[in-house]
Amino acid sequence: MTFRARHLLGIEHLAPLEITTVLDLADRYVDLNRRTVKQSDVLAGMTQINMFFENSTRTQASFELAGKRLGADVMNMSVAQSSVKKGETLIDTAMTLNAMHPDLLVVRHGASGAVNLLASKVNCAVLNAGDGRHEHPTQALLDALTIRRAKGRIQRLTVAICGDIAHSRVARSNLILLGKMENRIRLIGPPTLMPSGIGEFGVEVHDDMRKGLEGADVVMMLRLQKERMDGGFIPSEREYYHRYGLDADKLSHAKPDAIVMHPGPMNRGVEIDGDLADDINRSVIQDQVEMGVAVRMACMDLLARNLRLERGRKIVGTMV
Amino acid sequence: MTFRARHLLGIEHLAPLEITTVLDLADRYVDLNRRTVKQSDVLAGMTQINMFFENSTRTQASFELAGKRLGADVMNMSVAQSSVKKGETLIDTAMTLNAMHPDLLVVRHGASGAVNLLASKVNCAVLNAGDGRHEHPTQALLDALTIRRAKGRIQRLTVAICGDIAHSRVARSNLILLGKMENRIRLIGPPTLMPSGIGEFGVEVHDDMRKGLEGADVVMMLRLQKERMDGGFIPSEREYYHRYGLDADKLSHAKPDAIVMHPGPMNRGVEIDGDLADDINRSVIQDQVEMGVAVRMACMDLLARNLRLERGRKIVGTMV
Amino acid sequence: MTFRARHLLGIEHLAPLEITTVLDLADRYVDLNRRTVKQSDVLAGMTQINMFFENSTRTQASFELAGKRLGADVMNMSVAQSSVKKGETLIDTAMTLNAMHPDLLVVRHGASGAVNLLASKVNCAVLNAGDGRHEHPTQALLDALTIRRAKGRIQRLTVAICGDIAHSRVARSNLILLGKMENRIRLIGPPTLMPSGIGEFGVEVHDDMRKGLEGADVVMMLRLQKERMDGGFIPSEREYYHRYGLDADKLSHAKPDAIVMHPGPMNRGVEIDGDLADDINRSVIQDQVEMGVAVRMACMDLLARNLRLERGRKIVGTMV
Repeated sequence: MTFRARHLLGIEHLAPLEITTVLDLADRYVDLNRRTVKQSDVLAGMTQINMFFENSTRTQASFELAGKRLGADVMNMSVAQSSVKKGETLIDTAMTLNAMHPDLLVVRHGASGAVNLLASKVNCAVLNAGDGRHEHPTQALLDALTIRRAKGRIQRLTVAICGDIAHSRVARSNLILLGKMENRIRLIGPPTLMPSGIGEFGVEVHDDMRKGLEGADVVMMLRLQKERMDGGFIPSEREYYHRYGLDADKLSHAKPDAIVMHPGPMNRGVEIDGDLADDINRSVIQDQVEMGVAVRMACMDLLARNLRLERGRKIVGTMV
Repeated sequence: MTFRARHLLGIEHLAPLEITTVLDLADRYVDLNRRTVKQSDVLAGMTQINMFFENSTRTQASFELAGKRLGADVMNMSVAQSSVKKGETLIDTAMTLNAMHPDLLVVRHGASGAVNLLASKVNCAVLNAGDGRHEHPTQALLDALTIRRAKGRIQRLTVAICGDIAHSRVARSNLILLGKMENRIRLIGPPTLMPSGIGEFGVEVHDDMRKGLEGADVVMMLRLQKERMDGGFIPSEREYYHRYGLDADKLSHAKPDAIVMHPGPMNRGVEIDGDLADDINRSVIQDQVEMGVAVRMACMDLLARNLRLERGRKIVGTMV
Repeated sequence: MTFRARHLLGIEHLAPLEITTVLDLADRYVDLNRRTVKQSDVLAGMTQINMFFENSTRTQASFELAGKRLGADVMNMSVAQSSVKKGETLIDTAMTLNAMHPDLLVVRHGASGAVNLLASKVNCAVLNAGDGRHEHPTQALLDALTIRRAKGRIQRLTVAICGDIAHSRVARSNLILLGKMENRIRLIGPPTLMPSGIGEFGVEVHDDMRKGLEGADVVMMLRLQKERMDGGFIPSEREYYHRYGLDADKLSHAKPDAIVMHPGPMNRGVEIDGDLADDINRSVIQDQVEMGVAVRMACMDLLARNLRLERGRKIVGTMV
C-alpha cells in the first residue's frame, strides 16, 4: 500500500495513488449493506482524541464511530468551552494533550492553518477535521468514494460544485482532489460567493445554474456558510433558492443519471429542494454519511500503520 | 421469551406479557447486592447512540451505563447545542446518525411524538427516553420492577400517583402500565395540574392527599415540572408543600408498609420531605435508580435480539 | 504495598509510605519513552464516573485516559449544565450516581470540602480532582513524581512555590506533601496573595523572587486564579510579571540545575516567560502532564484493590 503521510492535513499533500489507497481500503471496510464492519484489533491499545474547537455533531460522531469500530479508546474534548476560556493558547492546549501521548489527534478549528501549525508541534498523527476556509480532507475523500461507488470511477467526470464556494473548505478540498484525479470541474454560484481569480485555475465558472449543470455527471451542492460571512453580502434565502437552489427543473439540465450530493447539514428549501434531497434515485446524500465512517476508518488505519513503523524505527535506532 | 417490539416507544404498545418479560430479564441482571452485573458480550460489536435534545444527567447516565455493562460502544450526542443550531431538522439529524448505522438509538426530545416520528424513519431500534408530555417507558418499567421487588407482585395493588399529573410523562406511562397490570390507581393533585377528563379512564381522582392515600400500597410522588408550565398556573412552593408535599403525617394514611417513590430529580421540601425521602424503611427512591440500569439493560438486550433476528431474515431473504 | 485509603480526598490523610507507594506504582506504568502503558485488565469490569462541577479539559482528560488505559468503562458527567440547574442538590446528584454502582467517582467542585462531604455518602471510591481552595491531591502526587524522576529523590530539597498561594489548592496540597517528605519550603508572592498566618507553619515566606529563589532545587510557579479572587486585589498583569513572573534572570538565583514547574494552564508572560516554559533543559512542565496520567492510573489501581478487598470481606461476612 502506498500511503506515506504522517498526518492528514489536506488533500493538497496527497498523491493520486495515496487517494486511491484510502478509497480502496475504505471500500474494504464496507459490507454488502453499506454498513462498516467492526474490526476491534486495528487500533487496539491506541488513543484517539477528538479536539473540536468548533462544534459539529456529524463530523465528530463519524470520527468517534470510526475509531470505536477499529477498537481505539476515543476521547472527546469540546475545547471551545474549557481551557481556551482560561486564556490558554491553542498550542498549549495541544501540547498538553500531546503530553498525554494520544496516538491520533482529530482537530477542527475555525482558523485556516491552525491544524497545520498544531501538527508541527506534536508527535502523534493529526487528522484535519476542517480548518477555517482551508481544507476538510476526509470530506473530499468520502465524496470521492461516494462518486466512485455510484459512477464506477473517480476520473474523467464532469463535476459541478454549486453555491457558496468562497467560504467553503469542502469546495476547496474537493476542487483539489477532483483536479488531481483529472475531472472537469464547473463552479456555479453568485459572483459574490466565488473566490477571486478562481477562473485561472483551469475550472469553468458559471453564475447560471442551468448552463453550469449542462452535461454534469455529479452535482455537488454546498451549504450556505452564513456563520463565516462576516459583514459581507448575505443573500436572501428565497432569492438564493430561486437562482441557485437545486430542484428537479434545474437538475434536468445535467445528465439523466447525474447524482446529487450535499455535505450537510442541509438548509432544505435554500440550497436544495427537500423532495430531491430525499429522492434515492438521484440523491446520494445518505451514502456520503455512510462512506464518511468508512473513509475515516481507512485514514486512521493508514496513519496508525505509519505511526507503528516510525516507532519501530526509533526503537531499533535506540538499540543500535 | 415474548417481546416482539422493534422499538420501545411507549408502554402503550406493550402487552402485559412483554412487560413481564422485561422485568424478568432485568431481575436476572441484578445481583444480591442490587448491583447490575457486567456482561460484555450481549451487545458486543453494537453501537448505541444517545441523542438527548433535552439535558438529563441521570437518564443519560443510566442508559450509557446500561449499554457499557452489556459491551456496546456508546456515543453521546447532546444535540441541543450543535447541528440543531445550524437549522437542521430533527429528521435530518436523525437520518444522518442513522446513516452511520448505529444499532440502538436512545432519544429524548421536548416535543410529544417526536420520538415516534423519528422511529418511523430509521432502521435501527429506537428507545424513547422521554418525549414531551407523552411517554417515558423505561421509567414506568423501572418503577414496576421496584414495586414488584418490594411488594412481591405488580398486580392488584393500590397505587397513588401524586402531584403534577398534567405535565408528567412519567405519570402517563405509569398509568398505562399499572392499568394494564390491573392495579387500582388513584391520582392526587390540585385540579389545575390534573388532565381534563381523566376521571373517565377508570381512575379515582382526589385533591386531598389524606383521602387519596388511604389504604395505598405504593405512593408515587411526581416532580413539579415548572419548565413545562408555559404561562399557566404555578403554585407557590410553600403552599404546594403544605397541601401536596409528602411527609410522615400524610403518609400515615397509607398502608403501614406502603413504599414511597420519586422519579427524581427531587425538589426536597416541595414535593417531599427530605427526611422521608432518605428513610430507607419507607423510601425506595435509590432502588428506582438501581433498577433503572437493570431495566434499560433488559430493554436493549431484547431489542438487540429482535434486530439480529430481523437482519438474519433479510440475509436469508437475499440468499433465496 | 501500603495504601489503606478508601478514598483519595487529600494529601493530608496520606502517610509518607502511602505517598511512596503511589509514586512507585506510577513509575511502573511509565515506559522508557515516558508513555503510559495500556493495561486493560486492571480496572476491567469497573465503572469510573467523572463528575466535574467545574470545567477542566486537562484534568478530566487525564483521569479519563488513565481509566481507559486500565480498561475501565469511563463516563463523563459535566454536572454544571444539567441536573444542578433543575434544583437538585450536590448530594442528591451524587446519591443518584452512587445508586448506579460506579466503582470510582472522580469529583471536581468549586466549594472547599464538597468532595469530602460527598465521599461520606457514597459507597464507591472517591477521588478528589480539586475542591475549592482546599486540596488537589493528584496534582501534588504528579508534581512529586516529576520531581523525584528529575532529582532522584523527593526528600531534603529546597522547593520554592511562587505566586498566588492564597487561592491555590495546588499550593496547599504540595505544601502538605513536601512537608511530610521533609523538604525545605519557601513561599514567594505578594503579601496580598499569601494566606494569613502561614509563616507559623515552618515555611519561609518571601515577597522578593530573587531572595526567595536563592539555592532552590525546584521552582514551582502557580497560576493566577483570577476566577477565585472575588472582589479583592487583582494585580495588573504587567506589574505582576515584572515582580513575580519567572524569567531567566530571576531563575539564575536558583541552583544551576533547578527545575521549573507549572500546573497549567499557563498565562505566558504573566506567571512565566514563554521561552523559559518551553526550554526543555529547565522546564519539566510537559513531564508533569505525562506523570499526571501515570499517577492517576496508580491511584485508581490502589483504590480499586482496596475496593475489591472490602467487597470480598462483605461477601465472606454474609456467608458466615
